[in-house]
Amino acid sequence: MSQALAQRLLAELSRIRLIDPHSHINPHAPAAKTLADILGYHYYTELAHAAGLPKEHIEEERISPKEKVARLVPMLRHIENTVQYRWLLNLCREFFSFDSDSITPANWEPLYDRALETLAQPNWEAQVLEQSGLDAVFLTNDFDDSLSGFDTHRYIPCLRTDDLVFHLTKAETRQRLASCTKVEFDNPAEFEQALGVLFGHFTRHGARACAISLPPDFEAAPISATVAGRLFATIRSESELPQDDRRLLSQFVFWKLAEKCDEHGLPFDLMIGVNRRVYEGGVYQGQDLFDNRCSLIQYRRLFNAFKRVTFPISVLSHGMNQELVSYSWIFPNVVTNGHWWYSNTPAYIELDCRARLQAVPQTKQIGYYSDMYKLEFALPKFSMYREVLAKLLAEDFVIGRNWTEDKALRLGRLVLRENVERIFPLR
Amino acid sequence: MSQALAQRLLAELSRIRLIDPHSHINPHAPAAKTLADILGYHYYTELAHAAGLPKEHIEEERISPKEKVARLVPMLRHIENTVQYRWLLNLCREFFSFDSDSITPANWEPLYDRALETLAQPNWEAQVLEQSGLDAVFLTNDFDDSLSGFDTHRYIPCLRTDDLVFHLTKAETRQRLASCTKVEFDNPAEFEQALGVLFGHFTRHGARACAISLPPDFEAAPISATVAGRLFATIRSESELPQDDRRLLSQFVFWKLAEKCDEHGLPFDLMIGVNRRVYEGGVYQGQDLFDNRCSLIQYRRLFNAFKRVTFPISVLSHGMNQELVSYSWIFPNVVTNGHWWYSNTPAYIELDCRARLQAVPQTKQIGYYSDMYKLEFALPKFSMYREVLAKLLAEDFVIGRNWTEDKALRLGRLVLRENVERIFPLR
Amino acid sequence: MSQALAQRLLAELSRIRLIDPHSHINPHAPAAKTLADILGYHYYTELAHAAGLPKEHIEEERISPKEKVARLVPMLRHIENTVQYRWLLNLCREFFSFDSDSITPANWEPLYDRALETLAQPNWEAQVLEQSGLDAVFLTNDFDDSLSGFDTHRYIPCLRTDDLVFHLTKAETRQRLASCTKVEFDNPAEFEQALGVLFGHFTRHGARACAISLPPDFEAAPISATVAGRLFATIRSESELPQDDRRLLSQFVFWKLAEKCDEHGLPFDLMIGVNRRVYEGGVYQGQDLFDNRCSLIQYRRLFNAFKRVTFPISVLSHGMNQELVSYSWIFPNVVTNGHWWYSNTPAYIELDCRARLQAVPQTKQIGYYSDMYKLEFALPKFSMYREVLAKLLAEDFVIGRNWTEDKALRLGRLVLRENVERIFPLR
Repeated sequence: MSQALAQRLLAELSRIRLIDPHSHINPHAPAAKTLADILGYHYYTELAHAAGLPKEHIEEERISPKEKVARLVPMLRHIENTVQYRWLLNLCREFFSFDSDSITPANWEPLYDRALETLAQPNWEAQVLEQSGLDAVFLTNDFDDSLSGFDTHRYIPCLRTDDLVFHLTKAETRQRLASCTKVEFDNPAEFEQALGVLFGHFTRHGARACAISLPPDFEAAPISATVAGRLFATIRSESELPQDDRRLLSQFVFWKLAEKCDEHGLPFDLMIGVNRRVYEGGVYQGQDLFDNRCSLIQYRRLFNAFKRVTFPISVLSHGMNQELVSYSWIFPNVVTNGHWWYSNTPAYIELDCRARLQAVPQTKQIGYYSDMYKLEFALPKFSMYREVLAKLLAEDFVIGRNWTEDKALRLGRLVLRENVERIFPLR
Repeated sequence: MSQALAQRLLAELSRIRLIDPHSHINPHAPAAKTLADILGYHYYTELAHAAGLPKEHIEEERISPKEKVARLVPMLRHIENTVQYRWLLNLCREFFSFDSDSITPANWEPLYDRALETLAQPNWEAQVLEQSGLDAVFLTNDFDDSLSGFDTHRYIPCLRTDDLVFHLTKAETRQRLASCTKVEFDNPAEFEQALGVLFGHFTRHGARACAISLPPDFEAAPISATVAGRLFATIRSESELPQDDRRLLSQFVFWKLAEKCDEHGLPFDLMIGVNRRVYEGGVYQGQDLFDNRCSLIQYRRLFNAFKRVTFPISVLSHGMNQELVSYSWIFPNVVTNGHWWYSNTPAYIELDCRARLQAVPQTKQIGYYSDMYKLEFALPKFSMYREVLAKLLAEDFVIGRNWTEDKALRLGRLVLRENVERIFPLR
Repeated sequence: MSQALAQRLLAELSRIRLIDPHSHINPHAPAAKTLADILGYHYYTELAHAAGLPKEHIEEERISPKEKVARLVPMLRHIENTVQYRWLLNLCREFFSFDSDSITPANWEPLYDRALETLAQPNWEAQVLEQSGLDAVFLTNDFDDSLSGFDTHRYIPCLRTDDLVFHLTKAETRQRLASCTKVEFDNPAEFEQALGVLFGHFTRHGARACAISLPPDFEAAPISATVAGRLFATIRSESELPQDDRRLLSQFVFWKLAEKCDEHGLPFDLMIGVNRRVYEGGVYQGQDLFDNRCSLIQYRRLFNAFKRVTFPISVLSHGMNQELVSYSWIFPNVVTNGHWWYSNTPAYIELDCRARLQAVPQTKQIGYYSDMYKLEFALPKFSMYREVLAKLLAEDFVIGRNWTEDKALRLGRLVLRENVERIFPLR
């Protein structure tokens, strides 16, 4: 009975149109061109590499898309158990009418050709959006993105700030900021001015969030004007900043970004817990990992100081989900946001989502985002999430709490769609 | 089949009469007087606040109980997914014959009036105890509680020691201790004498536990007499204790409390892992959170040193449950105790309870306590726990291990009732 | 339906013959002689002790095996809920035709006698291997083990290196190494030479892994020749090494072992996260616990430096499983290895195994090892694992992903058997 019920709920959840609140879509090339854009997604290259394919084979320069796929396909048999492989099969079935149980050296070429043909259709982008039920997709924009040349209602700008917080010591970053804001900055006040111009640019172009990913040892704290002045003076003198000062500079910039979010009414997405370049020999985008020893207590000052800023929070480590639930149940400005990366598998989604549904106000939960680089991945990724959600709504709410199916679906709709609209308001 | 079985087990578990081994009941006013005593429980005020209700609206001075409920009710629609809301509905149905699916601005007033009428019955306290199956309830007594004016067999004293361990630097705390023990103390020896008087007072009045909540970074360690002498001398001189010395003082007092538990044969309840006042703008009792980075290894010296003291242990972070299971399976004096606060939701209870049932001797598990402030909450909270327990007994023991239902129920009885009696013995 | 399916899969999984990739079997006395060898397993002595049996009763010198069992049996009623007790019952039923539901003071003597008779059969070792489906068993050999006098195809040597890494400051350890390698070493170069002899000895005798258990605070790092030289000079002078230098020495030896694994083509089993002697008054082998605050990030330099060495990794803390999954999905040389000790209960196996099956290449997962001291424990321990595996294959793959049963069983076979053969290759 519970399975039939979950199926019914799933069918209804699948009719809800989506706004995807976090992706890496390039609005100038949102859809895949070939199967290599699909199989080149870092999930597949890193799993293939981890299963034994040398990085050099994957990343050899000037190999054709077809050759790249040809090299990856033989490795797929090692990873057909993974949920990432399941996304791939699901995607190929839905979009390319693939009907085999696995992609093999024997059957990949017709699939490649079929994909090529499908993806070349002039209205493919519109088709994939429609078939995936996507009304809009949040982007991840570099701070010096011009934000022009695309429909910002469909592809919603989002100001990504990792470079500013963690790479301001690089001359290149400072020049990019000066150049895009037309503000030459040599001290904290001028830097703030540049940030103001930046936020103005983004909000004028319809940005609905500021976002950043943070390492496990980052701690949010205000930095005094004196200290900040000293840091900028050191940078100005072109001396190297010592490690401790680099941390202070990151803290300073981060805090200033929160102030700008406050001034401009932008939510600040925090994606907490990633260590960059842990595996330096890894494939492109397949080098980052994490340290589970991280706590939201590191953000207590931030949450207390910026009461008007909403912080949608993603945690990389499943071990932090209980903290996220608890902080969201206490702090008005903390909301739960999706299932990120290494926590984006059904095993962890089910545990994390269940805990959230049981203890966080239903209006404070952003269920899911795709994190995708190509539009084709929204469908299989949201499908995976909806399956888990349907199961939880069936077991914990309809059966466990005797809710009507309609009431359970209203909760589903909040989490899948309505909260995104309310938490990231159109301006 | 498994659902029907779980229902059968649940029906039997629900007949077991309870001793609630931890609550915050005021024995002079154990039951609610109005619905405001129910909805004023910090779970509802903090969830309502987190969902958007300003603290000032909730905590405005001199508002009537009815007005307070009127302000909270509109927020309930944001939290009807939560298990805390489920407690509320369950409670209103069982005690106030409420028969709607939600409490809304349209239907709360009759409920309020009905509750007022019910709660005003002269024998209400006896009724609620009876209907909840409660034989006795452990209290949380300030160390200077006179423990008089109530039936200590029904409301069992329990010496709460947070103030002594963490606030002895305050003159007020020291005066309270001196005053209730009639021991003026200016040095460690005199302080110990005061503690001796205190424990004598509590044990004479039927206390069955000493208890304390501890922050994640606390480490139990013995402190030398020399160091303790120096700390008391600093206090005597009315100088401020530096941070490190405050920690040493806490460690000193904590260790002395364990010694007194040993001398007086009292179990020492440790509730491990809470950070106080993390959200300083939060509602009353809704300001505390935690840091998952905490380990029972911080108590290794304690467990080794006090072999005759039983330590019933609650962990705030689900991430520590495996340690709790493992320490209880190795240390004779460590036992598992309930599901505390942020771990007190079915999602975490199920995981934590399953792990305990599989690896901790069945005589060393205290299944559940209510942590309640008003008697009415025992019923819905124990119901939630019993549902999870029934499910686990059905799945893991009757089905998974082919146990008879009787044998599974014997395990349930140990965990729900008998272990409480044996681990906190009547003296 | 899901239960019948899981049963069918379990029946098939049970037919797969096993190579147990980690045990503590003594190849000169692999099977139990009496029931005391079974009940004397540290799981039972520590649980009995934790439930109240004084250590002195268990470890009294010169008590007979029968007396030892007589003392342990009355404690079993406290632990009949535990999965460890389930192993015991399962074992007694399968091997000794025991047919009661519990082992009690009333029925243990006939069981004891029956066991004695069974275990005394001349071909018992072969019988138990056959009945358990065991083709071979990896050992845990002291570094100075002669590795002679047993069939190294059935009992596969494995070089255990805890003593070298953590006790090289002891003269006894150094003498043992010098004596078995015939290399007197007084400096790092000579020490490396001794290690080379050691690895030669082990690989010549069919060793298929090097192994070590590591405390939660260990961090793998290369140590410069200068520092290593200084450390050996201090040892040579018979001075005590200060704490920090002891850590450096451990790091030095550990890194050198990894180099030798690389040279000799041996996988290096890392068992991460145990704190030794936490409960100093505990029974034999029942004194160790852990600190959940541990991360694989502590091994980043190792994984990056030794690309050709395979690291099968066991984590003691369930909280590290997600890191293990993630590191295995990224690093080609990291593979998941079994469910260790405090994580070796169905509650944690199910969660951990599910996460692995969903995100780690199927060729990189070593499902299970027994960790046993006596052959009789392979059967009940592997049975427990297979039950969980069958459930996950049924729910997540056959039902959840529409796999055929055959395909699910191929995944089961990889995890249970084939990966062991490929990851620890015969040489």
